Amino acid sequence: MQPDFSALDDYLADVDADGYLVDAASDDSTQRYVSGFDAPDPFFTLYTPDGTYLLVSGLEYGRAKKEARADEVRRGSDFDMREKMQEYGRYEAEARARAEFLAEYDVESVVTPRRFPLGSADELRDLGVDVEAETEDVVTTIRAVKQDEEIEHVRQAQKANERAMQAAEELVADADVVDGVLHHEDEPLTSERVKEEIEVTLLREGCALDETIVACGTDAADPHNRGSGPLDANEPIIVDIFPRNKATKYHADMTRTFCKGDPSETVREWYDLTHEALDAALAAVEPGATGEDVHDAACDVYEDAGLPTLRDDPTTETGYIHSTGHGVGLDVHELPHVSTNGAELKAGHVITVEPGLYDPDVGGVRIEDLVVVTEDGYENLTDYPIELVVG
Amino acid sequence: MQPDFSALDDYLADVDADGYLVDAASDDSTQRYVSGFDAPDPFFTLYTPDGTYLLVSGLEYGRAKKEARADEVRRGSDFDMREKMQEYGRYEAEARARAEFLAEYDVESVVTPRRFPLGSADELRDLGVDVEAETEDVVTTIRAVKQDEEIEHVRQAQKANERAMQAAEELVADADVVDGVLHHEDEPLTSERVKEEIEVTLLREGCALDETIVACGTDAADPHNRGSGPLDANEPIIVDIFPRNKATKYHADMTRTFCKGDPSETVREWYDLTHEALDAALAAVEPGATGEDVHDAACDVYEDAGLPTLRDDPTTETGYIHSTGHGVGLDVHELPHVSTNGAELKAGHVITVEPGLYDPDVGGVRIEDLVVVTEDGYENLTDYPIELVVG
Repeated sequence: MQPDFSALDDYLADVDADGYLVDAASDDSTQRYVSGFDAPDPFFTLYTPDGTYLLVSGLEYGRAKKEARADEVRRGSDFDMREKMQEYGRYEAEARARAEFLAEYDVESVVTPRRFPLGSADELRDLGVDVEAETEDVVTTIRAVKQDEEIEHVRQAQKANERAMQAAEELVADADVVDGVLHHEDEPLTSERVKEEIEVTLLREGCALDETIVACGTDAADPHNRGSGPLDANEPIIVDIFPRNKATKYHADMTRTFCKGDPSETVREWYDLTHEALDAALAAVEPGATGEDVHDAACDVYEDAGLPTLRDDPTTETGYIHSTGHGVGLDVHELPHVSTNGAELKAGHVITVEPGLYDPDVGGVRIEDLVVVTEDGYENLTDYPIELVVG
Repeated sequence: MQPDFSALDDYLADVDADGYLVDAASDDSTQRYVSGFDAPDPFFTLYTPDGTYLLVSGLEYGRAKKEARADEVRRGSDFDMREKMQEYGRYEAEARARAEFLAEYDVESVVTPRRFPLGSADELRDLGVDVEAETEDVVTTIRAVKQDEEIEHVRQAQKANERAMQAAEELVADADVVDGVLHHEDEPLTSERVKEEIEVTLLREGCALDETIVACGTDAADPHNRGSGPLDANEPIIVDIFPRNKATKYHADMTRTFCKGDPSETVREWYDLTHEALDAALAAVEPGATGEDVHDAACDVYEDAGLPTLRDDPTTETGYIHSTGHGVGLDVHELPHVSTNGAELKAGHVITVEPGLYDPDVGGVRIEDLVVVTEDGYENLTDYPIELVVG
């Protein structure tokens, strides 16, 4: 895949810098995107309008030459690292090698991501290189617009995600109810047990995840609570899964809310309203609309029904208390914002749409689909039923 | 747990700085260690000899107050973030809030980890704060010495690791051999299949891992190759597992080499020699010995047997071509170095000892135990047989 870096070329011209420099491991998505290389330890990537150049350890040299999207790959020994280490110690030796690497490409000034390491930057400055952190989100804005290959990666992760959601739903649907608590194989069915099933399912699909949400009752009333302990009958259970495919590194994200038994009238109303808010927000997704338009469409549904939203009341602690979505890609949360101040949507943006309602006295309800903005609207990448009562 | 930060106090006094400042999420182990807090997004931790102070988002405020090892937790609204955002935009607003936060604790100068974000540092400098990246590994040196609680965390992760190793060994031992290739349930047994079994086992033990090594044949001859494809009979298979406990965040690390069938005479000799190198290196582990002493003990065994080592020949591409070990804790690779130039070992250091031999014409052999340095030697945290031929 060849990213379209024309906006970065323009930015570099604007700020009069010779290149864009990244010093990070590949868990940094900007590094992964600019270098096209996956390595566990930090390495140097220099992007210039003339080419992309990597400086890696000897250990990664062979693999980088094969796998990186780079015009040239260099290693420490090209810059006499061993001798420099003896003369200057490790940190200054690294800095001197890096400065020589930049000089070979006639680079005297660089812009970096905001989280570029301070030690590395100041040492380059001491050696005469002009180093400034970017003041705009240039590369993250570029990588928010996905190419077809990236959309396929997200689609693949989402298929795995749906299998994991199915495994979670089945555990809840097939549970026995003993004294109001869900049971599985004669033991209380816990949030932890459902998460384990989700993770094992994802793992067998080549995906991993650091965290997942299976939250019931008051846990579900806090949108950031991951959930713990036994799950109750007749209560809404929020299941929010956001895995990363281990090979491609692209994410998916979806949420469903399940209830085993008989939900309260309020929960039923909230669920239908949230489904309505989802449909309204989805209907607003198209190129040229803004992330704020999509957020507004969801807020309108809730406010028309008399429920509080953060848009209407910034101090509310119940009702619709988060934004409507976010971009998804190499990071599970990335641009564009689908919220107040969310900017214009473009074809190729992959975003979540995830309205929900929360109140410690009621619990929580959320429904989340993952969609890609297309030339004439959107394509929903989520293929999973929207149904509250299961089993 | 209360870390012993006296060495940090001394360093701050030496460089005449008021505090140590971290701006990172908790996947940064120094942040996790200094703050005692686990959060997915970056936050600010200020350590001073008088106390530890956190500046977090409103979202994390309640949890940080409960869970962080902090004398005070502050949030954006304490510094009028909303008003500042409107007046200055996001980045400058954050910088101004951070400068005010530092000023409240009379902090005018800070030292930071080397990978502190450049954007954040330069904006604080513009507001008059003196910010310098540390030139010594102060906090990583402190956290290399584990307290009892941390050793228990490593021990727990290692127990899970042994179960995963057992699962891997059983797959190899119980495999059928068809045309020289291991088979499981009538399909070729692949590196990927064994890794999946390892990961699922670890997951059920509350552990996760990003990568694991199951490498056979020429894959095994490259110590950094993760391995792929069908596994062969009569060939050594290196299994190296380094999981992290998801709750405590501490790692374990171990390697065994298995062979199903009849290994070559050379592989048998290499295995026995590597076992001997392991024993010799372990015997050298005690407080006051250096990491280099331990490395030398392993190298001596190989060189006495006439095999090449990097110590003897820095250009060799076969033989003993890596260092003997590394520290293990919140990071899977951390201080101390157990290699050439490895410094003095201290009681509380948790290190791997992992000699091995490699040659594309033979394959690879490695045996790795995890030990903690004690007052009078070491305790081996690894309880797993050392046996080449299985099944």
